[in-house]
Amino acid sequence: MSAQLSAALAEWSSLLGPQWVVAAGAPLEEAERTTFATRQRIPALLRPANAEEVAGCLRIAQRHRVPIHPVSRGRNWGYGSRVPAGGDCVLLQLERLDRIVAYDDRLGTLTVEPGVTFEQAHRHLQAQRARFFLTTIGGPPDASLLANALERGDGRGPNADIFAHVCALEVILPTGERVETGLGRFGNSRAQHGYRWGVGPSLDGLFSQSNLGVVTRLTLWLTLRPASYREVSWALEDDAQLPPLIDALQSLIAEGTVRASAFVWNELKALSITRQYPFAQTRGRVPLPSPLLEEWRSGFGRWAGSTGLYAASPALGTALEARVYEVLEPVVSRLKITELPADGESPMLGTPSDANLAMAYWRKRTPVPASPDLDRDRCGFLWSSVAVPFVGEEASAAQGIAQRVCRMFGLEPNLALLAPVSRCLYLVSALVFDREVAGEDEKALACLKALERELAAAGYLPARLGIASFPENHPTVDDSREVLRRLKLAVDPANVLSPGRYGL
Amino acid sequence: MSAQLSAALAEWSSLLGPQWVVAAGAPLEEAERTTFATRQRIPALLRPANAEEVAGCLRIAQRHRVPIHPVSRGRNWGYGSRVPAGGDCVLLQLERLDRIVAYDDRLGTLTVEPGVTFEQAHRHLQAQRARFFLTTIGGPPDASLLANALERGDGRGPNADIFAHVCALEVILPTGERVETGLGRFGNSRAQHGYRWGVGPSLDGLFSQSNLGVVTRLTLWLTLRPASYREVSWALEDDAQLPPLIDALQSLIAEGTVRASAFVWNELKALSITRQYPFAQTRGRVPLPSPLLEEWRSGFGRWAGSTGLYAASPALGTALEARVYEVLEPVVSRLKITELPADGESPMLGTPSDANLAMAYWRKRTPVPASPDLDRDRCGFLWSSVAVPFVGEEASAAQGIAQRVCRMFGLEPNLALLAPVSRCLYLVSALVFDREVAGEDEKALACLKALERELAAAGYLPARLGIASFPENHPTVDDSREVLRRLKLAVDPANVLSPGRYGL
Repeated sequence: MSAQLSAALAEWSSLLGPQWVVAAGAPLEEAERTTFATRQRIPALLRPANAEEVAGCLRIAQRHRVPIHPVSRGRNWGYGSRVPAGGDCVLLQLERLDRIVAYDDRLGTLTVEPGVTFEQAHRHLQAQRARFFLTTIGGPPDASLLANALERGDGRGPNADIFAHVCALEVILPTGERVETGLGRFGNSRAQHGYRWGVGPSLDGLFSQSNLGVVTRLTLWLTLRPASYREVSWALEDDAQLPPLIDALQSLIAEGTVRASAFVWNELKALSITRQYPFAQTRGRVPLPSPLLEEWRSGFGRWAGSTGLYAASPALGTALEARVYEVLEPVVSRLKITELPADGESPMLGTPSDANLAMAYWRKRTPVPASPDLDRDRCGFLWSSVAVPFVGEEASAAQGIAQRVCRMFGLEPNLALLAPVSRCLYLVSALVFDREVAGEDEKALACLKALERELAAAGYLPARLGIASFPENHPTVDDSREVLRRLKLAVDPANVLSPGRYGL
Repeated sequence: MSAQLSAALAEWSSLLGPQWVVAAGAPLEEAERTTFATRQRIPALLRPANAEEVAGCLRIAQRHRVPIHPVSRGRNWGYGSRVPAGGDCVLLQLERLDRIVAYDDRLGTLTVEPGVTFEQAHRHLQAQRARFFLTTIGGPPDASLLANALERGDGRGPNADIFAHVCALEVILPTGERVETGLGRFGNSRAQHGYRWGVGPSLDGLFSQSNLGVVTRLTLWLTLRPASYREVSWALEDDAQLPPLIDALQSLIAEGTVRASAFVWNELKALSITRQYPFAQTRGRVPLPSPLLEEWRSGFGRWAGSTGLYAASPALGTALEARVYEVLEPVVSRLKITELPADGESPMLGTPSDANLAMAYWRKRTPVPASPDLDRDRCGFLWSSVAVPFVGEEASAAQGIAQRVCRMFGLEPNLALLAPVSRCLYLVSALVFDREVAGEDEKALACLKALERELAAAGYLPARLGIASFPENHPTVDDSREVLRRLKLAVDPANVLSPGRYGL
């Protein structure tokens, strides 16, 4: 242990109390584990109780030049879990900051600390029969709302571009300084939780997908429960139907008929939620033989997807349904629209679910456990998420690249086209493997590198990066790298906060 | 003239050609004039032709430490027109950068340079029978789209929070460096005009309401023309109706029935669009006697407002109309919903109009000219815009303060409550006077100072500032001022770009 680290540990212990500083043992090894191969070591865990202690921890790190990396709930599965991007870092664990600070049922604003989970927020709203619901995610219910928003995760339902529906960040800079974004910096603003911009430059964006500060509080904007709610699902039997479907969805979103996220999954992704790889049938061979896939997807289609219709009156619900039939029926093989209780439970009405996590166990030889934990269970899992124009032919081209590259590396293409906004799709590819099989770690990383490179070469650049990403795939043509370097220096002179994150 | 300025002028002349550098004469005096009293002097005007020349101009300013201030079309009326905030600056006039760089009729994205006006963009879209329309503003049709977006102006119709619907900024920093925000920095991104965030920190917000860079290009997101369009208008006869109306509007917006901006004007604001102060009837006395106001507003009401309903099918239009009747009819004195041709001309469908500018001539003794120019005509005009929670009782309290303060200074309260977003209103007060009447300049500035102070004391903080604003009204409670100072230094080491703007 370096002299700097020792000195810092002594100060952290004195600040937090020794019970909140862990510098040896199993918790460190657990924190070093993610769903793909890494070499980073975690020399210590700090568990502050509040924003003041966060500021104190950062000041000590700055003084002793010890790299430090914040983690809320550590559920960044597929992108690196708790592991820092650029090398060994002390972990600043924020799960003790788990207060729901405020909820306003008139305007639908929810103010939370980093430790608050989707499940916790959902129960909180349910308990008071809130008029509003919180957009949930496809990921784990015990993920942090705040961290997911800052990573610009995509939601299920309305407000699906989650970071576009937050404001009023409290940020502790690596210097220990405190900044409130929006109008909160004036201390007496009645509109701060309902107004994003504040006055003067807007700083929110600086603290998303970055290493410029530790966000200790933010406000999320919720969605009013509809008077009438319908779920829409569809299936395509033929790849040629994909471009017209994408264009039809874009129309429905652009015209305001669909005001929620929509998604389209390929058959393998959908299958891998409900069953695991048939090692017995294939006598242990991978990848999945085509005849088996053809048999399994019967009745399901090659692509399937869904969205929701939210209406303020029964008449509007009926008219929305009619409009969706008009636009979608000509372009899909099967279309189903089902009216559901608007006060009911559905991921599209804010109910978290861990159903999708089963997908990460597709290639495991052990069954999906009751409480999935991808790090613990040594699932092999890597996400790639790229931005694709919301145009049928573009979506088709981008997914074609992903299909081809995944197959080249012996992985079944597991693909989704997500539409959280109206002009852009995320093509999300899951590389699913088994870390307990020799060679799979290396092969999966090589696949990610090739996938990033080929998608970028075709103009499909990443929307989110994990720590395994390959920056050489993404050269820049302007001065942004140098400018970001100076902005980083302005708030983190010793470069101690999550060095290397998002290439910063 | 200082030696630094002389040296810089010589270099600018050599860079741009002497015909694009003005250092004497009437144009300088014109540029120094705004709609209230100022003392700033403009030593020179520079008129670059493109982003490369902008970068060259800024490098020269940086080298010689000469303050410089960018202006697109100079139509920031009521906030300072072309006048720099903090003292004498050379003006960097961007009106020669007036190219419409691209329009995508599939996704509705329009990429423009700073000199492009609302009128110009509207004509461009009309000429090609575009499927999409551009949200316009209540201000002058010859204002710059780009500058209005960066100032976070509010629009009429959908996408009314204009800055929330832009992306892909090209920015020249005061150092001469060039940054593309979003995915544009990678040079080969197909999704850059439809995707805001890019990957890594999002920088867009840094360049709005700021002095951190000169934006030379951005992309706006347009609205699909509806299949069916209705205009909704209402009037209130009694101030007590205002809170329930505001709450009803908030419901309609939160539930998604109204997807455009709504506004409520007080009677004086509406009257001042169509007539001028009756100096003959009052024998020259101000302010307007109550009996006259009562008589004039007969049939109009004390407050009036409107919004639009955009539908993707006739059935949806009918259902939206029914829902609006259901919610608004109980809370207003008069309600009118009119179906209009969806391909017609209306400010709510993107057609610019200068009708509102007449308001600035309310206290002039000369008639409103055919082409209003508030600077040229020495109109007295000051805006105050503050953020108010979108809650009836809050709106009522805030406008009450504005009524009282304006009357204290002998001005007729000219007020609007604007709803470009769903959780926050802008209370916009216009201080309208005649700069040719002795003492009015001073009185209006004193009124603005008192208005800002009293609104801030009640928790209603500014959403936009003009150069006449009083920073002492807005003390901060965090470290944001110091942090903004360091961010400024990181991109503008000699502090030459618009020093003092927004308190930076």
